[in-house]
Amino acid sequence: MIAYDGTEFHGWQRQADVRTVQQVLEEAIERLTESRARVTASGRTDTGVHAIGQVVAFYTQVTLGPDVIKRALNAFMPADVRVFHADEVPQSFHPTLDAVSKRYRYVIDNASVADPFQRRFALHVPHRLDHERMAEAGRALVGRHDFRSFETEWPNRTSSVRTIVDLTVERLGERVHVEVEADGFLYNMVRSITGTLLLVGSGRRPISFAGDTLLAQDRRQAGPTAPAHGLVLLRVNY
Amino acid sequence: MIAYDGTEFHGWQRQADVRTVQQVLEEAIERLTESRARVTASGRTDTGVHAIGQVVAFYTQVTLGPDVIKRALNAFMPADVRVFHADEVPQSFHPTLDAVSKRYRYVIDNASVADPFQRRFALHVPHRLDHERMAEAGRALVGRHDFRSFETEWPNRTSSVRTIVDLTVERLGERVHVEVEADGFLYNMVRSITGTLLLVGSGRRPISFAGDTLLAQDRRQAGPTAPAHGLVLLRVNY
Repeated sequence: MIAYDGTEFHGWQRQADVRTVQQVLEEAIERLTESRARVTASGRTDTGVHAIGQVVAFYTQVTLGPDVIKRALNAFMPADVRVFHADEVPQSFHPTLDAVSKRYRYVIDNASVADPFQRRFALHVPHRLDHERMAEAGRALVGRHDFRSFETEWPNRTSSVRTIVDLTVERLGERVHVEVEADGFLYNMVRSITGTLLLVGSGRRPISFAGDTLLAQDRRQAGPTAPAHGLVLLRVNY
Repeated sequence: MIAYDGTEFHGWQRQADVRTVQQVLEEAIERLTESRARVTASGRTDTGVHAIGQVVAFYTQVTLGPDVIKRALNAFMPADVRVFHADEVPQSFHPTLDAVSKRYRYVIDNASVADPFQRRFALHVPHRLDHERMAEAGRALVGRHDFRSFETEWPNRTSSVRTIVDLTVERLGERVHVEVEADGFLYNMVRSITGTLLLVGSGRRPISFAGDTLLAQDRRQAGPTAPAHGLVLLRVNY
Protein backbone atom coordinates (compact mmCIF):
# COMPACT_ATOMS: atom_id res chain seq x y z
CA MET A 1 0.00 0.00 0.00
CA ILE A 2 1.41 3.35 -0.98
CA ALA A 3 0.54 7.00 -0.34
CA TYR A 4 1.54 9.99 -2.41
CA ASP A 5 1.22 13.73 -2.62
CA GLY A 6 0.15 14.01 -6.27
CA THR A 7 1.05 17.69 -6.64
CA GLU A 8 4.36 17.11 -8.36
CA PHE A 9 3.40 13.99 -10.30
CA HIS A 10 1.80 13.74 -13.72
CA GLY A 11 -0.49 11.08 -12.33
CA TRP A 12 0.12 7.39 -11.85
CA GLN A 13 0.80 6.09 -15.32
CA ARG A 14 4.26 6.03 -16.81
CA GLN A 15 4.72 8.48 -19.70
CA ALA A 16 7.71 9.79 -21.59
CA ASP A 17 9.43 12.91 -20.24
CA VAL A 18 7.22 13.55 -17.21
CA ARG A 19 7.47 12.45 -13.59
CA THR A 20 4.86 9.84 -12.65
CA VAL A 21 4.31 7.69 -9.56
CA GLN A 22 4.64 4.46 -11.54
CA GLN A 23 7.98 5.56 -12.94
CA VAL A 24 9.40 6.60 -9.54
CA LEU A 25 8.25 3.33 -7.98
CA GLU A 26 9.52 1.14 -10.82
CA GLU A 27 12.91 2.87 -10.77
CA ALA A 28 13.22 2.22 -7.03
CA ILE A 29 12.29 -1.45 -7.50
CA GLU A 30 14.77 -1.79 -10.36
CA ARG A 31 17.48 -0.29 -8.21
CA LEU A 32 16.67 -2.73 -5.41
CA THR A 33 16.20 -5.89 -7.46
CA GLU A 34 18.60 -5.10 -10.30
CA SER A 35 16.04 -6.27 -12.83
CA ARG A 36 13.17 -4.77 -14.84
CA ALA A 37 10.06 -4.03 -12.82
CA ARG A 38 6.49 -3.56 -13.94
CA VAL A 39 4.05 -2.33 -11.32
CA THR A 40 0.25 -2.59 -11.56
CA ALA A 41 -2.02 -0.34 -9.47
CA SER A 42 -5.66 -0.61 -8.38
CA GLY A 43 -6.31 2.20 -10.82
CA ARG A 44 -4.63 5.19 -12.41
CA THR A 45 -4.83 8.51 -10.65
CA ASP A 46 -4.70 11.70 -12.71
CA THR A 47 -2.21 14.54 -12.52
CA GLY A 48 -2.49 16.26 -9.14
CA VAL A 49 -4.67 13.57 -7.53
CA HIS A 50 -3.34 12.16 -4.25
CA ALA A 51 -3.47 8.72 -2.65
CA ILE A 52 -3.53 7.54 0.94
CA GLY A 53 -4.28 3.88 0.26
CA GLN A 54 -3.28 3.05 -3.32
CA VAL A 55 -2.65 -0.68 -3.77
CA VAL A 56 0.06 -1.80 -6.18
CA ALA A 57 1.68 -5.12 -7.02
CA PHE A 58 4.78 -6.33 -8.81
CA TYR A 59 6.54 -9.60 -9.43
CA THR A 60 10.10 -10.09 -8.26
CA GLN A 61 12.49 -12.99 -7.85
CA VAL A 62 14.36 -11.41 -4.96
CA THR A 63 13.95 -13.27 -1.70
CA LEU A 64 13.91 -10.24 0.59
CA GLY A 65 11.05 -10.06 3.08
CA PRO A 66 8.18 -7.57 2.51
CA ASP A 67 9.33 -5.32 5.32
CA VAL A 68 12.86 -5.10 3.96
CA ILE A 69 11.46 -4.26 0.51
CA LYS A 70 9.23 -1.58 2.04
CA ARG A 71 12.12 0.08 3.87
CA ALA A 72 14.45 -0.14 0.89
CA LEU A 73 11.91 1.39 -1.49
CA ASN A 74 11.25 4.22 0.98
CA ALA A 75 14.98 4.85 1.16
CA PHE A 76 15.26 4.96 -2.64
CA MET A 77 12.14 7.05 -3.37
CA PRO A 78 11.56 10.80 -2.99
CA ALA A 79 9.56 11.94 0.06
CA ASP A 80 6.33 12.60 -1.84
CA VAL A 81 5.66 8.89 -2.28
CA ARG A 82 5.86 6.35 0.56
CA VAL A 83 5.27 2.63 0.96
CA PHE A 84 3.17 2.10 4.11
CA HIS A 85 2.66 -1.61 3.96
CA ALA A 86 4.10 -4.49 1.91
CA ASP A 87 3.06 -8.12 1.76
CA GLU A 88 3.72 -11.17 -0.33
CA VAL A 89 0.63 -12.10 -2.38
CA PRO A 90 -0.30 -15.04 -4.67
CA GLN A 91 0.94 -14.48 -8.19
CA SER A 92 -2.68 -14.53 -9.32
CA PHE A 93 -3.44 -11.31 -7.37
CA HIS A 94 -4.32 -8.37 -9.60
CA PRO A 95 -4.76 -4.95 -7.93
CA THR A 96 -7.26 -3.70 -10.53
CA LEU A 97 -9.26 -6.81 -11.38
CA ASP A 98 -9.51 -8.13 -7.83
CA ALA A 99 -10.70 -4.83 -6.33
CA VAL A 100 -14.26 -5.07 -5.04
CA SER A 101 -14.62 -1.34 -4.45
CA LYS A 102 -12.61 1.86 -4.08
CA ARG A 103 -13.24 4.88 -1.91
CA TYR A 104 -12.27 8.44 -2.83
CA ARG A 105 -12.43 11.61 -0.75
CA TYR A 106 -12.81 15.10 -2.13
CA VAL A 107 -11.60 17.73 0.37
CA ILE A 108 -13.05 21.25 0.42
CA ASP A 109 -11.53 24.01 2.54
CA ASN A 110 -14.67 25.97 3.40
CA ALA A 111 -13.03 28.70 5.53
CA SER A 112 -13.47 32.29 4.35
CA VAL A 113 -9.66 32.56 3.95
CA ALA A 114 -7.86 29.55 2.44
CA ASP A 115 -5.57 27.62 4.77
CA PRO A 116 -2.09 27.94 3.18
CA PHE A 117 -1.10 24.57 4.66
CA GLN A 118 -3.98 22.78 2.91
CA ARG A 119 -3.80 24.47 -0.47
CA ARG A 120 -2.23 21.46 -2.22
CA PHE A 121 -4.84 19.06 -0.84
CA ALA A 122 -8.14 20.94 -0.71
CA LEU A 123 -10.32 23.04 -3.00
CA HIS A 124 -10.99 26.40 -1.38
CA VAL A 125 -14.66 27.48 -1.44
CA PRO A 126 -14.96 30.73 0.54
CA HIS A 127 -18.77 30.96 0.76
CA ARG A 128 -20.42 28.75 3.36
CA LEU A 129 -21.59 25.41 1.95
CA ASP A 130 -24.69 23.63 3.23
CA HIS A 131 -23.20 20.17 3.60
CA GLU A 132 -26.55 18.67 4.64
CA ARG A 133 -28.11 19.72 1.36
CA MET A 134 -25.14 18.21 -0.46
CA ALA A 135 -25.51 14.93 1.48
CA GLU A 136 -29.22 14.78 0.70
CA ALA A 137 -28.63 15.48 -2.99
CA GLY A 138 -25.95 12.79 -3.10
CA ARG A 139 -28.32 10.11 -1.85
CA ALA A 140 -29.96 9.99 -5.29
CA LEU A 141 -26.67 8.72 -6.75
CA VAL A 142 -26.28 5.71 -4.46
CA GLY A 143 -26.99 2.39 -6.13
CA ARG A 144 -26.50 0.87 -9.56
CA HIS A 145 -26.93 3.50 -12.27
CA ASP A 146 -25.69 4.61 -15.64
CA PHE A 147 -23.36 7.45 -14.61
CA ARG A 148 -22.64 8.79 -18.09
CA SER A 149 -23.73 12.27 -16.89
CA PHE A 150 -20.71 12.21 -14.55
CA GLU A 151 -18.10 11.07 -17.02
CA THR A 152 -15.81 13.43 -18.88
CA GLU A 153 -15.24 11.36 -21.98
CA TRP A 154 -18.41 9.59 -22.83
CA PRO A 155 -18.95 7.46 -24.85
CA ASN A 156 -16.28 5.22 -23.42
CA ARG A 157 -15.53 1.82 -24.86
CA THR A 158 -17.52 -0.19 -22.36
CA SER A 159 -20.45 0.40 -20.05
CA SER A 160 -20.95 3.51 -17.93
CA VAL A 161 -23.03 1.58 -15.41
CA ARG A 162 -21.44 1.53 -11.95
CA THR A 163 -22.63 0.93 -8.40
CA ILE A 164 -22.05 3.59 -5.75
CA VAL A 165 -22.25 1.74 -2.45
CA ASP A 166 -21.73 4.80 -0.24
CA LEU A 167 -21.74 8.57 -0.71
CA THR A 168 -21.30 10.84 2.31
CA VAL A 169 -20.82 14.57 2.77
CA GLU A 170 -19.51 15.59 6.17
CA ARG A 171 -18.34 18.79 7.77
CA LEU A 172 -15.29 18.71 10.05
CA GLY A 173 -14.98 22.27 11.31
CA GLU A 174 -14.07 24.42 8.31
CA ARG A 175 -13.60 21.40 6.05
CA VAL A 176 -16.16 19.52 4.01
CA HIS A 177 -15.41 15.96 2.87
CA VAL A 178 -17.28 14.34 -0.01
CA GLU A 179 -16.61 10.60 0.01
CA VAL A 180 -17.70 8.21 -2.72
CA GLU A 181 -17.28 4.44 -2.63
CA ALA A 182 -18.10 2.44 -5.74
CA ASP A 183 -17.31 -0.81 -7.51
CA GLY A 184 -15.61 1.22 -10.19
CA PHE A 185 -15.29 4.80 -11.40
CA LEU A 186 -15.69 6.48 -14.76
CA TYR A 187 -13.19 9.10 -15.86
CA ASN A 188 -13.50 12.19 -13.58
CA MET A 189 -16.59 10.70 -11.93
CA VAL A 190 -15.87 11.84 -8.35
CA ARG A 191 -14.76 15.26 -9.54
CA SER A 192 -17.92 15.84 -11.58
CA ILE A 193 -20.15 14.52 -8.79
CA THR A 194 -18.38 16.94 -6.42
CA GLY A 195 -18.81 19.83 -8.88
CA THR A 196 -22.52 18.98 -9.07
CA LEU A 197 -22.93 18.76 -5.29
CA LEU A 198 -21.08 22.08 -4.87
CA LEU A 199 -23.80 23.80 -6.91
CA VAL A 200 -26.38 22.33 -4.53
CA GLY A 201 -24.36 23.20 -1.43
CA SER A 202 -24.04 26.81 -2.46
CA GLY A 203 -27.77 27.08 -3.14
CA ARG A 204 -27.45 27.62 -6.87
CA ARG A 205 -29.30 24.39 -7.68
CA PRO A 206 -32.08 22.51 -5.85
CA ILE A 207 -31.48 19.30 -3.89
CA SER A 208 -33.02 17.32 -6.76
CA PHE A 209 -30.27 18.52 -9.11
CA ALA A 210 -27.92 15.55 -8.61
CA GLY A 211 -30.68 13.00 -9.22
CA ASP A 212 -32.02 14.96 -12.18
CA THR A 213 -28.54 15.09 -13.67
CA LEU A 214 -28.17 11.33 -13.29
CA LEU A 215 -31.47 10.73 -15.09
CA ALA A 216 -30.63 13.20 -17.86
CA GLN A 217 -27.79 10.91 -19.08
CA ASP A 218 -26.06 14.03 -20.36
CA ARG A 219 -22.70 15.38 -19.16
CA ARG A 220 -23.73 18.93 -19.99
CA GLN A 221 -26.35 18.79 -17.23
CA ALA A 222 -23.80 18.20 -14.48
CA GLY A 223 -21.78 20.75 -12.55
CA PRO A 224 -18.20 21.53 -13.57
CA THR A 225 -15.45 19.00 -12.90
CA ALA A 226 -13.89 19.98 -9.56
CA PRO A 227 -10.10 20.48 -9.78
CA ALA A 228 -7.80 17.51 -9.25
CA HIS A 229 -5.91 18.73 -6.18
CA GLY A 230 -8.84 18.16 -3.77
CA LEU A 231 -9.12 14.46 -4.64
CA VAL A 232 -7.50 11.59 -2.80
CA LEU A 233 -7.82 7.82 -3.25
CA LEU A 234 -8.56 6.70 0.31
CA ARG A 235 -8.64 2.92 0.08
CA VAL A 236 -9.24 -0.10 -2.09
CA ASN A 237 -11.29 -3.02 -0.83
CA TYR A 238 -10.59 -6.61 -1.95
CA MET B 1 -2.64 38.44 11.34
CA ILE B 2 -1.08 36.38 8.58
CA ALA B 3 -0.27 32.70 8.00
CA TYR B 4 2.28 31.28 5.61
CA ASP B 5 3.75 28.03 4.38
CA GLY B 6 7.43 28.91 4.74
CA THR B 7 8.68 26.18 2.40
CA GLU B 8 9.15 28.41 -0.62
CA PHE B 9 10.18 31.58 1.24
CA HIS B 10 13.64 32.63 2.29
CA GLY B 11 12.18 33.64 5.62
CA TRP B 12 10.41 36.83 6.61
CA GLN B 13 12.95 39.54 6.04
CA ARG B 14 13.34 41.29 2.71
CA GLN B 15 16.58 40.48 0.90
CA ALA B 16 17.88 41.04 -2.59
CA ASP B 17 17.15 38.36 -5.21
CA VAL B 18 15.23 35.90 -3.02
CA ARG B 19 11.53 35.49 -2.30
CA THR B 20 10.58 36.54 1.23
CA VAL B 21 7.26 36.99 3.03
CA GLN B 22 7.94 40.65 3.74
CA GLN B 23 8.62 41.32 0.07
CA VAL B 24 5.48 39.53 -1.16
CA LEU B 25 3.35 41.37 1.41
CA GLU B 26 4.88 44.78 0.73
CA GLU B 27 4.43 44.34 -3.01
CA ALA B 28 0.74 43.52 -2.52
CA ILE B 29 0.26 46.58 -0.28
CA GLU B 30 2.06 48.78 -2.79
CA ARG B 31 -0.18 47.49 -5.54
CA LEU B 32 -3.27 48.22 -3.44
CA THR B 33 -2.27 51.61 -2.03
CA GLU B 34 -0.12 52.82 -4.91
CA SER B 35 2.51 54.03 -2.49
CA ARG B 36 5.61 52.64 -0.78
CA ALA B 37 4.89 50.20 2.02
CA ARG B 38 7.06 49.13 4.91
CA VAL B 39 5.76 46.23 7.01
CA THR B 40 6.95 45.36 10.50
CA ALA B 41 6.41 41.87 11.98
CA SER B 42 6.36 40.51 15.52
CA GLY B 43 9.64 38.84 14.65
CA ARG B 44 11.55 37.44 11.72
CA THR B 45 11.08 33.83 10.84
CA ASP B 46 13.90 31.93 9.14
CA THR B 47 13.94 30.20 5.77
CA GLY B 48 11.49 27.28 5.82
CA VAL B 49 9.79 28.27 9.10
CA HIS B 50 5.99 28.59 8.92
CA ALA B 51 3.50 30.88 10.63
CA ILE B 52 -0.11 30.44 11.65
CA GLY B 53 -0.43 33.64 13.70
CA GLN B 54 2.26 36.07 12.62
CA VAL B 55 1.31 39.69 13.46
CA VAL B 56 2.38 42.47 11.12
CA ALA B 57 1.64 46.18 10.86
CA PHE B 58 2.02 48.91 8.28
CA TYR B 59 1.04 52.53 7.90
CA THR B 60 -1.18 53.61 5.06
CA GLN B 61 -3.13 56.70 4.09
CA VAL B 62 -5.77 54.79 2.17
CA THR B 63 -9.21 54.96 3.74
CA LEU B 64 -10.30 51.41 2.88
CA GLY B 65 -11.70 49.36 5.76
CA PRO B 66 -9.59 46.55 7.28
CA ASP B 67 -11.75 43.84 5.74
CA VAL B 68 -11.44 45.31 2.26
CA ILE B 69 -7.66 45.53 2.72
CA LYS B 70 -7.57 41.91 3.88
CA ARG B 71 -9.50 40.66 0.86
CA ALA B 72 -7.53 42.78 -1.59
CA LEU B 73 -4.17 41.60 -0.22
CA ASN B 74 -5.32 37.97 -0.41
CA ALA B 75 -6.33 38.54 -4.01
CA PHE B 76 -2.93 40.05 -4.84
CA MET B 77 -0.75 37.55 -2.96
CA PRO B 78 0.27 33.98 -3.87
CA ALA B 79 -1.60 31.16 -2.08
CA ASP B 80 1.25 30.32 0.31
CA VAL B 81 0.66 33.48 2.35
CA ARG B 82 -2.78 34.59 3.57
CA VAL B 83 -4.15 37.45 5.65
CA PHE B 84 -6.58 35.98 8.19
CA HIS B 85 -7.47 39.10 10.11
CA ALA B 86 -6.94 42.83 9.66
CA ASP B 87 -7.66 45.69 12.05
CA GLU B 88 -6.92 49.36 12.37
CA VAL B 89 -4.49 50.00 15.24
CA PRO B 90 -3.09 53.14 16.92
CA GLN B 91 -0.06 54.47 15.09
CA SER B 92 1.95 53.80 18.23
CA PHE B 93 1.44 50.03 17.92
CA HIS B 94 4.62 48.10 17.23
CA PRO B 95 4.31 44.35 16.52
CA THR B 96 7.78 43.53 17.89
CA LEU B 97 8.12 45.90 20.84
CA ASP B 98 4.56 45.53 22.10
CA ALA B 99 4.57 41.72 22.07
CA VAL B 100 4.33 40.28 25.58
CA SER B 101 5.08 36.74 24.50
CA LYS B 102 5.18 34.46 21.45
CA ARG B 103 4.33 30.79 21.12
CA TYR B 104 6.04 28.40 18.70
CA ARG B 105 5.19 24.80 17.87
CA TYR B 106 7.65 22.22 16.63
CA VAL B 107 5.88 19.36 14.83
CA ILE B 108 7.35 15.84 14.75
CA ASP B 109 5.88 13.10 12.57
CA ASN B 110 6.61 10.06 14.75
CA ALA B 111 5.08 7.40 12.48
CA SER B 112 7.40 4.64 11.27
CA VAL B 113 6.79 5.77 7.66
CA ALA B 114 6.70 9.54 7.02
CA ASP B 115 3.33 11.01 6.05
CA PRO B 116 3.91 12.45 2.54
CA PHE B 117 1.23 15.09 3.20
CA GLN B 118 3.06 16.41 6.28
CA ARG B 119 6.59 16.36 4.95
CA ARG B 120 6.79 20.14 4.49
CA PHE B 121 5.51 20.82 8.00
CA ALA B 122 6.92 18.12 10.25
CA LEU B 123 10.26 16.53 11.07
CA HIS B 124 10.04 12.78 10.58
CA VAL B 125 11.46 10.71 13.46
CA PRO B 126 10.78 7.02 12.73
CA HIS B 127 11.71 5.53 16.12
CA ARG B 128 9.12 5.87 18.85
CA LEU B 129 9.67 8.95 21.06
CA ASP B 130 8.82 8.96 24.75
CA HIS B 131 6.96 12.28 24.83
CA GLU B 132 6.47 12.10 28.60
CA ARG B 133 10.23 12.00 29.15
CA MET B 134 10.56 14.98 26.80
CA ALA B 135 7.88 16.90 28.71
CA GLU B 136 9.55 16.17 32.04
CA ALA B 137 12.96 17.22 30.70
CA GLY B 138 11.48 20.42 29.32
CA ARG B 139 10.16 21.48 32.73
CA ALA B 140 13.69 22.44 33.77
CA LEU B 141 13.70 25.14 31.10
CA VAL B 142 10.56 26.94 32.25
CA GLY B 143 11.24 30.25 34.00
CA ARG B 144 13.73 33.09 33.68
CA HIS B 145 17.13 31.75 32.62
CA ASP B 146 20.19 32.53 30.58
CA PHE B 147 19.50 30.42 27.49
CA ARG B 148 22.88 30.87 25.79
CA SER B 149 23.18 27.06 25.57
CA PHE B 150 20.21 27.15 23.21
CA GLU B 151 21.36 29.94 20.94
CA THR B 152 23.13 29.38 17.67
CA GLU B 153 25.13 32.60 17.54
CA TRP B 154 26.25 33.45 21.02
CA PRO B 155 27.54 35.91 22.05
CA ASN B 156 24.79 38.10 20.72
CA ARG B 157 24.80 41.83 21.19
CA THR B 158 22.45 41.93 24.14
CA SER B 159 21.39 39.59 26.90
CA SER B 160 20.60 35.90 26.42
CA VAL B 161 18.27 35.90 29.42
CA ARG B 162 14.68 35.08 28.49
CA THR B 163 11.60 33.80 30.29
CA ILE B 164 9.89 30.64 29.08
CA VAL B 165 6.35 30.85 30.46
CA ASP B 166 5.18 27.50 29.08
CA LEU B 167 6.80 24.44 27.51
CA THR B 168 4.65 21.43 26.64
CA VAL B 169 5.28 18.18 24.79
CA GLU B 170 2.15 16.38 23.66
CA ARG B 171 1.38 13.36 21.55
CA LEU B 172 -1.56 13.46 19.14
CA GLY B 173 -1.65 10.00 17.62
CA GLU B 174 1.48 9.66 15.52
CA ARG B 175 2.45 13.30 15.96
CA VAL B 176 4.43 14.91 18.76
CA HIS B 177 4.13 18.67 19.34
CA VAL B 178 6.74 20.61 21.27
CA GLU B 179 5.35 24.04 22.16
CA VAL B 180 7.37 26.83 23.73
CA GLU B 181 5.99 30.18 24.86
CA ALA B 182 8.42 32.88 25.96
CA ASP B 183 8.76 36.64 26.30
CA GLY B 184 11.36 36.49 23.56
CA PHE B 185 13.50 33.99 21.69
CA LEU B 186 17.19 33.76 20.90
CA TYR B 187 18.31 32.72 17.44
CA ASN B 188 17.31 29.07 16.80
CA MET B 189 16.20 28.69 20.43
CA VAL B 190 13.11 26.53 19.82
CA ARG B 191 14.95 24.42 17.29
CA SER B 192 17.89 23.73 19.63
CA ILE B 193 15.55 23.04 22.58
CA THR B 194 13.68 20.58 20.34
CA GLY B 195 16.94 18.94 19.23
CA THR B 196 17.88 18.56 22.89
CA LEU B 197 14.49 17.12 23.90
CA LEU B 198 14.65 14.69 20.96
CA LEU B 199 17.80 13.14 22.45
CA VAL B 200 15.90 12.65 25.71
CA GLY B 201 12.79 11.31 23.96
CA SER B 202 14.78 8.71 22.08
CA GLY B 203 16.53 7.56 25.28
CA ARG B 204 19.98 8.69 24.24
CA ARG B 205 20.21 11.22 27.09
CA PRO B 206 18.74 11.20 30.61
CA ILE B 207 15.78 13.38 31.63
CA SER B 208 18.18 15.73 33.42
CA PHE B 209 19.93 16.51 30.11
CA ALA B 210 17.89 19.62 29.23
CA GLY B 211 18.40 21.19 32.67
CA ASP B 212 22.09 20.24 32.69
CA THR B 213 22.51 21.83 29.26
CA LEU B 214 20.86 25.03 30.48
CA LEU B 215 23.23 25.22 33.46
CA ALA B 216 26.29 24.46 31.31
CA GLN B 217 25.88 27.81 29.49
CA ASP B 218 27.54 26.21 26.50
CA ARG B 219 25.94 25.64 23.09
CA ARG B 220 28.09 22.57 22.47
CA GLN B 221 26.29 20.78 25.31
CA ALA B 222 22.89 20.99 23.63
CA GLY B 223 21.38 18.67 21.04
CA PRO B 224 21.56 19.53 17.35
CA THR B 225 19.39 22.32 15.95
CA ALA B 226 16.23 20.65 14.62
CA PRO B 227 15.53 21.50 10.96
CA ALA B 228 13.46 24.59 10.12
CA HIS B 229 10.53 22.91 8.36
CA GLY B 230 9.00 21.50 11.57
CA LEU B 231 8.70 24.95 13.19
CA VAL B 232 5.65 27.20 13.11
CA LEU B 233 4.97 30.53 14.83
CA LEU B 234 1.61 29.83 16.47
CA ARG B 235 0.65 33.16 18.01
CA VAL B 236 1.82 36.43 19.46
CA ASN B 237 0.34 37.79 22.67
CA TYR B 238 0.03 41.55 23.31
